[in-house]
Amino acid sequence: MQTHSSHPIRVLCSRISEQLEQSVTVQGWVHAIRNLGRLAFVHVRDRSGIVQCVLEGELAEMTLSLESVVSVTGLAVEASKAPGGLEIRASAIQCISAAAAPLPFEINKKTIGARLDTMLDNRVLSLRHPKVHATFHIQAALAGAFRDYLTERDFTQIFTPKIVASGTEGGSNLFPVDYFGRPAYLAQSPQFYKQMMVGAGYERVFEIAPVYRAEEHNTSRHLNEYVSLDVEMGFIRSEEELMDLEQDMLGYMLRKAGAECEAEFALLGVELPVPHDIPRIPVAEAQSILQRKYGKTSPKGDLDPEGERLICRYAAEQNKPAFVFITRYPREIRPMYAMPAPEDAALTASFDLIFNGLEITTGGQRIHDYDELTASIRGRGLLPEHFESYLDLFRYGMPPHGGFAIGLERLTSRLLGQPNVREASAFPRDRMRLTP
Amino acid sequence: MQTHSSHPIRVLCSRISEQLEQSVTVQGWVHAIRNLGRLAFVHVRDRSGIVQCVLEGELAEMTLSLESVVSVTGLAVEASKAPGGLEIRASAIQCISAAAAPLPFEINKKTIGARLDTMLDNRVLSLRHPKVHATFHIQAALAGAFRDYLTERDFTQIFTPKIVASGTEGGSNLFPVDYFGRPAYLAQSPQFYKQMMVGAGYERVFEIAPVYRAEEHNTSRHLNEYVSLDVEMGFIRSEEELMDLEQDMLGYMLRKAGAECEAEFALLGVELPVPHDIPRIPVAEAQSILQRKYGKTSPKGDLDPEGERLICRYAAEQNKPAFVFITRYPREIRPMYAMPAPEDAALTASFDLIFNGLEITTGGQRIHDYDELTASIRGRGLLPEHFESYLDLFRYGMPPHGGFAIGLERLTSRLLGQPNVREASAFPRDRMRLTP
Repeated sequence: MQTHSSHPIRVLCSRISEQLEQSVTVQGWVHAIRNLGRLAFVHVRDRSGIVQCVLEGELAEMTLSLESVVSVTGLAVEASKAPGGLEIRASAIQCISAAAAPLPFEINKKTIGARLDTMLDNRVLSLRHPKVHATFHIQAALAGAFRDYLTERDFTQIFTPKIVASGTEGGSNLFPVDYFGRPAYLAQSPQFYKQMMVGAGYERVFEIAPVYRAEEHNTSRHLNEYVSLDVEMGFIRSEEELMDLEQDMLGYMLRKAGAECEAEFALLGVELPVPHDIPRIPVAEAQSILQRKYGKTSPKGDLDPEGERLICRYAAEQNKPAFVFITRYPREIRPMYAMPAPEDAALTASFDLIFNGLEITTGGQRIHDYDELTASIRGRGLLPEHFESYLDLFRYGMPPHGGFAIGLERLTSRLLGQPNVREASAFPRDRMRLTP
Repeated sequence: MQTHSSHPIRVLCSRISEQLEQSVTVQGWVHAIRNLGRLAFVHVRDRSGIVQCVLEGELAEMTLSLESVVSVTGLAVEASKAPGGLEIRASAIQCISAAAAPLPFEINKKTIGARLDTMLDNRVLSLRHPKVHATFHIQAALAGAFRDYLTERDFTQIFTPKIVASGTEGGSNLFPVDYFGRPAYLAQSPQFYKQMMVGAGYERVFEIAPVYRAEEHNTSRHLNEYVSLDVEMGFIRSEEELMDLEQDMLGYMLRKAGAECEAEFALLGVELPVPHDIPRIPVAEAQSILQRKYGKTSPKGDLDPEGERLICRYAAEQNKPAFVFITRYPREIRPMYAMPAPEDAALTASFDLIFNGLEITTGGQRIHDYDELTASIRGRGLLPEHFESYLDLFRYGMPPHGGFAIGLERLTSRLLGQPNVREASAFPRDRMRLTP
């Protein structure tokens, strides 16, 4: 690469220690300023870290606002009192892009002293706070580890359409799209398409893509658009294999993200859980435990949010990790494609995974027999004609199969102990929020 | 893992050679059948390959249809005349899922003898044909290599919303979404959001996600929903750095996909191009070349599809690879955020990449100064108020930056020499097609 005198090569803050006693140029955002008149200390932040720049004489007189983008050239020297043990004695400073002052909130304190809504309204600023910033490095690492784990095991990444002609579960909670004057919807999940790709001979597939739920909820647990980490696998013997896979995969993802984002987890003070020997508790048994231990009554065949929190507390009391698989949900609360349990056709070979008190996964084995599936659709009061292009899949040879999906934002927010899932979405979409 | 006698461990076709003279069980689809009365040869296909199973006596009398899913157990033996040099002498065969007969088209011939529309109508079947199948393994490898290359270079994977309040380019070609009774749209590109993530301090970001274009075109080059491989990078000195990056990255992606999908490329007879020294031709000069060499007249400031084909032919005649960067598009045909060229404000610091006769990338440096950007928006007859949450980005310190996007289906189809981009989409969405 050429060096242009007018365009000095930029050095990242994290690499300055390799160039001590040399002239270097750093470029980044003004994180903090301490002005003592003829002497000023300016902290410059780039994607790798923060460095202290010392401005003397005329340079110290420059008017600078926090969060402006600057280019500072100077001698890199050791400085025991400076953060990181080094600083730059500036010989030149240039303001590339001045920031308006004052900022809507301070981002160089330990935490942002603003409400979540204000942080989301000023998302580009709040994302610059090191602790908020760390969230999305960790999220990217989790998604990358998901891909690596599955690719290594012969899973093929797929890309399926999000504009669909009908819903996967009968038509509720769908966002309507005007598709050249024809009615269409945003996909609630890639469910049908990932099953089709299994049946198309890929056998093992995964997808990392947005899904849409037009739910009117406005809670700390719901997003109307979120990233779904989807897995589907053919030639399984039962849903137990899927839980084996998810447990092992989560262990890999946490170890990998932990290694890649060691500094981020340390900054956030998060200790990574180890998902081994996750209990697998039939929902009826979980309900009994909740009733017996906590006097908690659950809705029919399911756990409510309070029940999800309590069953994780129960697991913690047994010295188990903060994960619990709940299994054997009744057919009436699972989708029409859920495989009946072998021992009781009123139950399903399905599961949820609860992590730190919140459901982060729904999964299970699917019905692969054409006649059984059409009967199940009819049993819901739905019309097989409405599922024609999906049902075609079962006409031409379909192996036993199943899968699951992990909500990426829920996984991230539970891992980081964030009370609101919106904190784990760079630009959340909820009942009220469409911008930024 | 335990072995259940009722559930024998499945062996992949590609691993049978490791278990010669042993009893094995294969599970897969019936690819071909040759029945000689008391002897039948059944080819079973799984995700790893095809194996010949020999059925004798009563077993040969079983009624089997093509593409049914079967489980075959038997002795694995060398067989010089069998495909792959081995076969299974079946002791048991079970039909797991019977396929309806006849199939809408044959998929065990060298190519599918059906029209593209018929193939897309019966997508699960057509995807099983080895040549069609190969396309999406290659596509997954390309997307994976894109991620690996960028992650290695400090780029962070981002996930940004596809439901947006307004378009990036003024409102045309948008699919409307009913968002709880409020008007919203499907994102044409993550343009604004990837710029925001650069400005949020991530500096270098990429996204792999669907984008939506409500274009009325119904051509072999257009999809209304496609996967965009987006890149955005801060602290660049000019758009030349972006072209350097894309050239190097494409080289990596093709080498990596080439290594991972050697068998697939061989099956398709595709030789991988090497994108080195890609010419960078200002669009005005490209137009002159087309006029001079081929008598071809171009639209104002742009190339049309015929021009894109001819400029690649021109490059080939110069012994250049099948890639050409076209640069310096006039401002009037680029978006309002395009950075003016330093030497002529009527032109932009932008580029397209043409590959094998088709534009697969649009990119360039972006305006990062707030006043310059609002002036540019006004210059288009647009209202800055409509871009408020985007413009906020430029109020709090924004570095020079730029990026580009690659259409994944276009890259795949051009690489594989497919005449229609729909062939590189598992479930294409076009003017007429919403299913499967």
